Amino acid sequence: SRTHRIAVVPGDGIGKETVPEGLRVLDAAARRFGFDLKLDHYDWSCETYQKTGRMMPEDGLEQLAQNDSIFLGAVGWPGVPDHISLWGLLIPIRRSFDQYISLRPCKLMPGTKSPLANRGPADIDFYVVRENTEGEYSSSGGRMFPGTEREFVTQDSVFTRHGVDRVLKYAFELAQTRPRKKVTSATKSNGITFTMPYWDERFAEMAKNYPGIATDQFHIDILCAHFVQHPDWFDVVVGSNLFGDILSDLGPAVAGSIGIAPSANINPEKKHPSMFEPVHGSAPDIAGKHICNPIGQIWSGAMMLEHLGEKEAADAILRAIEKLLAEGGPRTRDLGGQAGTADVGRALAEAV
Amino acid sequence: SRTHRIAVVPGDGIGKETVPEGLRVLDAAARRFGFDLKLDHYDWSCETYQKTGRMMPEDGLEQLAQNDSIFLGAVGWPGVPDHISLWGLLIPIRRSFDQYISLRPCKLMPGTKSPLANRGPADIDFYVVRENTEGEYSSSGGRMFPGTEREFVTQDSVFTRHGVDRVLKYAFELAQTRPRKKVTSATKSNGITFTMPYWDERFAEMAKNYPGIATDQFHIDILCAHFVQHPDWFDVVVGSNLFGDILSDLGPAVAGSIGIAPSANINPEKKHPSMFEPVHGSAPDIAGKHICNPIGQIWSGAMMLEHLGEKEAADAILRAIEKLLAEGGPRTRDLGGQAGTADVGRALAEAV
Ligand SMILES: CC(C)[C@H](C(=O)O)[C@@H](O)C(=O)O
Ligand SMILES: CC(C)[C@H](C(=O)O)[C@@H](O)C(=O)O
Repeated sequence: SRTHRIAVVPGDGIGKETVPEGLRVLDAAARRFGFDLKLDHYDWSCETYQKTGRMMPEDGLEQLAQNDSIFLGAVGWPGVPDHISLWGLLIPIRRSFDQYISLRPCKLMPGTKSPLANRGPADIDFYVVRENTEGEYSSSGGRMFPGTEREFVTQDSVFTRHGVDRVLKYAFELAQTRPRKKVTSATKSNGITFTMPYWDERFAEMAKNYPGIATDQFHIDILCAHFVQHPDWFDVVVGSNLFGDILSDLGPAVAGSIGIAPSANINPEKKHPSMFEPVHGSAPDIAGKHICNPIGQIWSGAMMLEHLGEKEAADAILRAIEKLLAEGGPRTRDLGGQAGTADVGRALAEAV
Repeated sequence: SRTHRIAVVPGDGIGKETVPEGLRVLDAAARRFGFDLKLDHYDWSCETYQKTGRMMPEDGLEQLAQNDSIFLGAVGWPGVPDHISLWGLLIPIRRSFDQYISLRPCKLMPGTKSPLANRGPADIDFYVVRENTEGEYSSSGGRMFPGTEREFVTQDSVFTRHGVDRVLKYAFELAQTRPRKKVTSATKSNGITFTMPYWDERFAEMAKNYPGIATDQFHIDILCAHFVQHPDWFDVVVGSNLFGDILSDLGPAVAGSIGIAPSANINPEKKHPSMFEPVHGSAPDIAGKHICNPIGQIWSGAMMLEHLGEKEAADAILRAIEKLLAEGGPRTRDLGGQAGTADVGRALAEAV
């Protein structure tokens, strides 16, 4: 039977609680749909850093590279600065494995509530496709005249044809699989006058290859406003590393689902492992209490199975989540219920 | 009596309809509160460009410099690219006159509706303070290997101590005048690792001078989400040129007021004229129909009077706007009414 090798990295905080529930549901799916999961567990986290001075061992990336996918919980803990925790684990994984697509569904699930008035599931159902390796997150920049009145810092945004074209292509290909067949581009070419006009240029060029796909584009400022005022306008929204980052938090927020939203960091060519993680963070305030919502993790597991070619199993998990939410299955506190993390995981595993 | 010299630039589209209403209300305020307005009218616009090849004459900035303030409608029209219209008029004014603060109130007005469920005027009442001259809107960058597979573009973000400190200071000073006395900083130091940590550093440093002001900071992605989920958390929000741009469209959007929101581009030292303009654009779709909402323009006029030291007159205009909205005075279509642009202007002029 088919075997998939998964690197399991619970990380910090509630990641340690959501990942076991994710695995519980993945395991149920594997049994039902007849494939095997070979799990490698890694306890890399801010605790590791506090003990060893590193977020992961020196050959950490090589260890992960043995796997087909990485199933991540959350990274970050008070007392360990972001440039250590994130830049010691999350960012190197995205970059070394050329996970150049960050994909996030923004979907108002039946049975849950959007913070927007009068919006139902039919109004909010789109994807944010984010460039995940270059752009505004660059390692080129520096500081001059430190400590003086003349002090300044710079940081280069870098947009390559290689990097821009491949994320645009992914967005158009994704739109082709969707009923509405539309791609919206996030730009700011009226203010950011070198990189963003280039992005627009490549977007127009790529669109020519997809005559069946409708396109539009908005400056990031008004696009954020439209997410709130007209979430029903969107189908596939594509943006640079920074704009995609912003839109893929704002999208789940308008869908009312930061606690249940999943995300995928994808290397579409499958030359390297891809990584699947919930949108939420390590949530120090509720960590250890077993009350966090595991659905973001479990849904991320479904995205992982889809990436691994187990489409049927992925669909079954998604249907189970939809059914649980719509039909009043166990809910954690963030959704107004009383259930514990494991109650939700068990219910979903059974449903699958 | 006191005289203020105002440069009036209606610009494009509905700017030509909102500015006369703004002037009508300013005129009423001048008569009531006993000051004079000396108006200089400039018809600079995209039409000017189409006739003369320039958005404004070569000595345009010198002409404007004779005035105490600039009262602007909207800039931009289909067929004239942004890099001509905006970079030929709006941006040079902001930069040459060192209007380093962009200030935008985000306020849910009584009698109007937020797109958020269950939110009333008490929940949404904050200011976005945006750095308006440097940061991500830089003129440093370029393209290499054009037209080849190796092509790339770069754009430097530039944050100077001078530029960062003065906008932070302004935000803290503003917070001191507000009942809640809180400043929230927009950052992204976990991803943008040169400029944003510097911003954080200066923010922490500036905060030391204001022990009575509460502070917090969020990464821009989750901050946008919080605008939707918890608009009641905010009092004064300060951000870089790009982050401030995004937040000052998203803020009015969650307050349901893009049509009525004002903005100020301020040179606090009054060495140069400041500029006051509504948040909305030239709205080609409804231009010429006399149905657009003039409140954004009129409210911008109130901000202008406040800047010119006419605080009482500014308050009177703001109260008139609040009263008209709360008590079912004439409303334009965007607010669900049937009134024309001038009906609203006349009602407000009378009320003042
Ligand atoms: C028109 C554009 C350049 C401008 C900006 O981004 O500064 C606008 O969005 C604004 O906020 O005034
Ligand atoms: C933690 C941070 C660096 C990261 C990002 O901005 O990429 C996060 O916000 C995300 O979206 O995964």
